Formats: sequence, C-alpha cells, structure tokens
Amino acid sequence: MATGETRVALLGFGTVGRAVTRILTEHAPPGVRLTHIFNRDVARKKAAWVSPDVCWTDNIDDVFASDANVIVELIGGRNPAGVWVRRALENGRSVVTANKQLIAHEGPALAQLAREGRQQLRFEAAVAGGIPVIGALREGIAGDRVNRITGILNGTCNFILTSMENEGAAFADALARAQELGYAEADPTDDVQGYDARAKLAILCGVAFRVPVAPETISCRPITLVDAIDFRYAGELGGTIRQISQAALDETSSDRIVASVRPSVVPKNSPLARVDGSQNIIVARGHYGGDTVYSGSGAGGGPTSVAIVSDLVALAADRGQPRADAPANGAVRVDPEFVTAHYLRFIVRDGPGILARIAQSLAAQGINIDAVLQLPAGTKDALPFVVTIEPCAPATLARAMKEIGAFDFHVCPPVDLPLMSDGTRQ
Amino acid sequence: MATGETRVALLGFGTVGRAVTRILTEHAPPGVRLTHIFNRDVARKKAAWVSPDVCWTDNIDDVFASDANVIVELIGGRNPAGVWVRRALENGRSVVTANKQLIAHEGPALAQLAREGRQQLRFEAAVAGGIPVIGALREGIAGDRVNRITGILNGTCNFILTSMENEGAAFADALARAQELGYAEADPTDDVQGYDARAKLAILCGVAFRVPVAPETISCRPITLVDAIDFRYAGELGGTIRQISQAALDETSSDRIVASVRPSVVPKNSPLARVDGSQNIIVARGHYGGDTVYSGSGAGGGPTSVAIVSDLVALAADRGQPRADAPANGAVRVDPEFVTAHYLRFIVRDGPGILARIAQSLAAQGINIDAVLQLPAGTKDALPFVVTIEPCAPATLARAMKEIGAFDFHVCPPVDLPLMSDGTRQ
Repeated sequence: MATGETRVALLGFGTVGRAVTRILTEHAPPGVRLTHIFNRDVARKKAAWVSPDVCWTDNIDDVFASDANVIVELIGGRNPAGVWVRRALENGRSVVTANKQLIAHEGPALAQLAREGRQQLRFEAAVAGGIPVIGALREGIAGDRVNRITGILNGTCNFILTSMENEGAAFADALARAQELGYAEADPTDDVQGYDARAKLAILCGVAFRVPVAPETISCRPITLVDAIDFRYAGELGGTIRQISQAALDETSSDRIVASVRPSVVPKNSPLARVDGSQNIIVARGHYGGDTVYSGSGAGGGPTSVAIVSDLVALAADRGQPRADAPANGAVRVDPEFVTAHYLRFIVRDGPGILARIAQSLAAQGINIDAVLQLPAGTKDALPFVVTIEPCAPATLARAMKEIGAFDFHVCPPVDLPLMSDGTRQ
Repeated sequence: MATGETRVALLGFGTVGRAVTRILTEHAPPGVRLTHIFNRDVARKKAAWVSPDVCWTDNIDDVFASDANVIVELIGGRNPAGVWVRRALENGRSVVTANKQLIAHEGPALAQLAREGRQQLRFEAAVAGGIPVIGALREGIAGDRVNRITGILNGTCNFILTSMENEGAAFADALARAQELGYAEADPTDDVQGYDARAKLAILCGVAFRVPVAPETISCRPITLVDAIDFRYAGELGGTIRQISQAALDETSSDRIVASVRPSVVPKNSPLARVDGSQNIIVARGHYGGDTVYSGSGAGGGPTSVAIVSDLVALAADRGQPRADAPANGAVRVDPEFVTAHYLRFIVRDGPGILARIAQSLAAQGINIDAVLQLPAGTKDALPFVVTIEPCAPATLARAMKEIGAFDFHVCPPVDLPLMSDGTRQ
C-alpha cells in the first residue's frame, strides 16, 4: 500500500469472518475500513448489523476490481484460497490470513510474491488463535536467538486429553464429547493425527528459526495411542499426557532441525500440564533470555479475530513497507525424534518371564531401565504395567521395541511415549 | 533516524549493559552497531572482549558529539538519566530504555518530545524484563480492547512469598535469603512496599488502556503484612498468597480506572499461583479475545538485554517513523480498590464473645460472612483464625475493620487481603 486508508475486503463470512466484522464495526482501528465481504450465497449470509457502506458479493472478481488494498483471507484450505491470495499479492494488495495449511505449505513462495510486489503478508491468526506468538517471536524477542519451541498447538487434542485425565474417560468418549461441544470436527483426523499441530509447528519454525520447514517432514504420532490407563500411570510418575509439538535447532548443523508432534508424558508442575481444555501454550527458549511462555485461547471467533485485526493495525502503521515474515524458499532437513527418556506401557497376558524378556531386549540395545511400575488393576488376561527407561537415541529404542513387539504375550501393541523431564525439554 | 545504520551508544555498563554488549558483539541484528559505551571510571570497567571499534568514555558530551543515533539508557533512576534521555530526544536521537521509574513518571512528556523530534522512545525492558508484554499489548493484541491487566510484576516479592509458602519461612528469613541470593536489594523498600510494581503497572496502563496514570496514585500495600500462618490458612481455602498488581478500565467512566498493588489470596490452580520464584506473569483480558497470558523472567541481564536488543531491531526496521508509545499528558483518576471478597486474619487473646463482636461489626456494615476457619494451632494467648467475607465495597470494609481493630483482644493488628475468585478477577 502506498498511502492513506487501509480498505479491507474480507473473504469468508463464517465464525471468524463475523467476529472480524464485529470488531471492525464496533471498534475499528484508526484508518482501517471494511469495504467488501465476499461469501457464497450472500443473500442468505448478509447481516443487518453490518454497515450499509460495506459491499457484499459472491463474485471474487468484484473484490479484485475494487479499491480494497488489503485482503483478509478466511476461506481456509489450500484451494481456492491459495489462488486468491496469490492473485491479491500479484495485484498490489497486502494479505492477512488465518490459513495455517496455506502458510505452512506455501508461506515461503507467498512471502516471495509479497516482497516482489512490495506488499505485506501477515498470518498471526494462523497459529494459536488469539495468542500473539508470531509477533512475539518476530519482534518481541527478536534480539534473542530462539533455539527451541515447545507447545500445545491443538486445542481439540488438549480438550480430549484433559477430559481423559479429569474424568477417566476413554478416548472415544472424550472425542464424542469434544464433537458434541464443537471442539472437534466430525472428521477429527487432522487433529488427532497431529497434522494440524505440525502445520502450526512448521510456521513457528519459519518465524523462530528463520528456516523453511516442510510440514510433511515433521513426524506425527496420533493421540489415539493413549489409553485411559496411561493417565493413571503417568500420574503415578508425577505427570500427565499432552500432545506436545516441539522443534529445536541442531546446534551442530545449521541446515537441520529436530521436530515432532506426539503424545508425551509431561510433569504435572510444568506449564504444559496446566493448560486447560482447548487452550494453547507456546514456550520459546532463547539462547540469551531463557524461556518466555505465551498462553490463551487457540481458536474461536473472538481470539482469532483479534489476531486478524491486530495484523490490520500493524499493516496500517507500516504503510509502504513491504513485510513478509516467512523464510526463504527451500527446506531444512528435519529429524523426527529427540533423545529422551521414555515411558513404555504394556498390556499382557500374565505369565512367567515377561519382564525378563523385555528387560533383555532393552539391555541388548544398551538401554537402561529406570523403573518398573505396576498398579493394582487388570486381570491375568490383560495386565498393564509400565517401564520407564533412561534417555536413548530414538533409533535404538525403535529396534528394541520392534523385538519386544513381536513377543506373543501382548494383548495390544506396546506404546512408547517421550517422558519430558521438565516443562520444555524432552 | 533518517536512513541507514543504527549506531548505538550505551549509557551504563552494569549487568544489563554487559549483557546487551554481549548480544551486540556475538549476534548483532542486521544494521545495528554498538559504537559507544558510557560509564563512570571506564578505565576500570573496560572489557577486553568488546570490539576495539567501540569507543569508551566517561564524558557524556562525547556521546552527544558522536554520530550515534540511538541512546540505550541503562543508568536507572530519574536523574541524571532523565536529563540525558531528554537531551537525546531533543537532539535527533531515538532512545531505548529499561528505566521503569523514568517512564512511569515522565513517559508522556518524553513521548511528546520524541514525537516532536520525529524520534522513537521504546521501553520494552522497563516492564517484566524478557517478557515482551509491551509489544504484545501495543501490537500483538492491538485489535482488541484490553480492559483488565493482572500481574505479578515484582520478582523479589514473588521470590519471598514463594519461599514463605514452600518452606514455611518467616518474612524476615525469606527476605534475608532473597538478599543473599541477589534477588533483593540491601534496602528492599521499593520492592516490598509495592513501589516497583506500581511503576510497572502504571506503564502497562498507559500502553494497554492508552490513558496516562501517575504511579503515585496507585495504592500499594506492603507484603510485610503477610505472616507464615497466612499461607496455611490460604492453603486451607485452596489458595496461596501473591503480590498482585491489577488495573481495570471503569466501563462507566472513561477517565477513571481501578488499580492497586497488594498481597492477595489467589486460587492454587490459577496461573498467578503457579509463577515460581523470581518469575513474572501478566494476564491481559480483552473485550473480544478473552485472556492472554505472558510469563518468563522478569529481571536479570539475559532477559532484560533481549528486550533492549529487540527494541533496537524494531527501531532499525521502523527507520524514519517516529514512534513513542506513552499516552498523552495528563492523568486519569485512579480508584484504589476492587470490589472483592476478602480474607480477614486475626490473632487474638482467646476469650468468650470474640467472634460475636467481629461478626456484629461486619453485620453493622451489611457485610456477609462466608466462612470462619480455625486450624489447630496457636495458644490461648495468641490464637489465629480467619474469616472470609463476601464481596463488598472497599470503603465499607474499611469502616468495619476500623471498628474491629479497636477491640482489645488483638495480639497484632488484623489483616485483610483480597480473595481472588479466579486467576484474574478480584
């Protein structure tokens, strides 16, 4: 934008679009004006409380023919949202978006387009809803060298896991309740498999480490691995279970990071364990300044719309300065796993020598057992117990678990979860 | 600054100054260069690891005669720091400062100077050390309308109170230990009386509410009121005790806020109760986005220097744009107390009718008792007990406490603490 007013065209009038419109109607920042709302079926969508000066349309060409100089993209998904975002940037318009999949996959290319067109691309709302973590990493602690990001980035998984913890619910029941309350989609795959969280983690890596990370290179494990009984054992160990997204710079190699999204045992007294329901949290570890912690609502119309409008405020203040915060094109190498202690949970048909065989397989790989835990529960036919092991390389554990998994005494496949020693370190 | 390089003159080479110099030596942001270090007795201070290109001086006139275009002020106190900051702003230099007393008392006037000279005045480091809360309030959630700020803004008090909680220590012992460890000054008045926290709260009000608040109009109560026994009673009520700084917009009057700094009973499961040792936390409540929470190290060379260098990064990026975030001159009216439930603690010489007399005094003011608590401890000569009361107007409670305080059965003056019903609401 060269000068003057920030004229906003909104693409998508769903929950977040309505909330953005509400703020721009009741409490518009100085110099920011909503001029267009694009949605399918505008006749049905059109809301009486919106100013009559706002032009409603279901034809995207109307938006591009207008004098709107900022596009707020709230369509979601990669198509057609990506096409329209590119078209906007190529045609002298800045873009504010909440679209995590688009930014995670195409952020670097879109940022390049924005720079070329001297436009801005902003996406505070794409990660952790109303928590201004993109701004904190990009500006608030810009003077530090952030080398580790740890977070709970998916409210749906956190809601499910905290329900399982607090009510002893089974995964399926907790999921059903989350769906009832609108915290989980009818198809919860993206959330429970970790795909949603890894898109956000990839974006955070780009901003915090200034390296491009392809989201599909971040390994995920589903929270469906977690059983109600794991909360009892984790509790016995002074912990609980959360879906943890974590990424760290490799201090020895500038083109490599370690990153993963997986259910993990975290200590009860860590900030990660204390995140309630659908809330999100991010812990950034800086080389100079240590840990800073950011938490709040990770989703919802109100918080997400605040992130969008805050980006509009910044954009209006930075007029004439191109700004696009995604890293350069390319991709760093991503290693999937941290060297960490682990929690191994077994459910077996009881018989003599089971622990001896497990211990032998671990010992054969040089893995040290830390503790063996068996709570009074279960039957001879389905007896749960837990072994904790000292930190070891992920590949080493994988070899041991492959051998152990082949034994004939398992009622269900054994589960290994990282055991975090403090709130932010695996 | 018109164009080009950001040339930094550092005033003060103490703990924070050294840490800033370390970052600017090891990991300088693009376009930012340290050119001068001013300190008394430079011959003794001069450090061999600093680049020989940096000019050391103990004559402030050397700094103002140089081509440095940004002054980083780390002298502290209002004089001569204030004189030099004004001189810098009047002479075409931007200022980055960690000086909370200066900004709290003179922020509006200095911001005006900065605007007139088309310079920037930045002070992220003045509040909560390495936690980028000024940036979060000013930009990260700029799209919201923040109406309440609650925080733990003084690490010394938090260290003392958490020591008393965890170790059952008396105030004097906890203070002595904080002094030994360098968390408290030889003269701890500013910290324990709340003067340090209220300066920071005044700055946060300016940024969050965009109203000027004179720090001395914020009422403080010292944490010396708190006795080891209060942690036992607070624990029995599911809470603990923290020095809480809180400010809220008055929804009914735009030129009035409510603000105070005082030891308060907070629920154990609130984010405020979970802040360890010398850490800080800030909870911002937005009208649209709800609560966002920021925590981390509130002091120390590393975190504070990150805040300073992050301000330099922002300044270098915003070249040519004047920016000064303090509100306009003037001052809003500040009411000292929130309508809240209270915890009243008594230590009495036991005898018949004591509770009846207290209850009568409360009833005479229309105050409802919620609970009476007496733990098995104490003697007939010094018997502690606690009364909790339902929310009432502060003036009403003051009248009742005046009458109650005059009774002859007290071993020490009764103590009333706000009883917060959740993490962020009194």
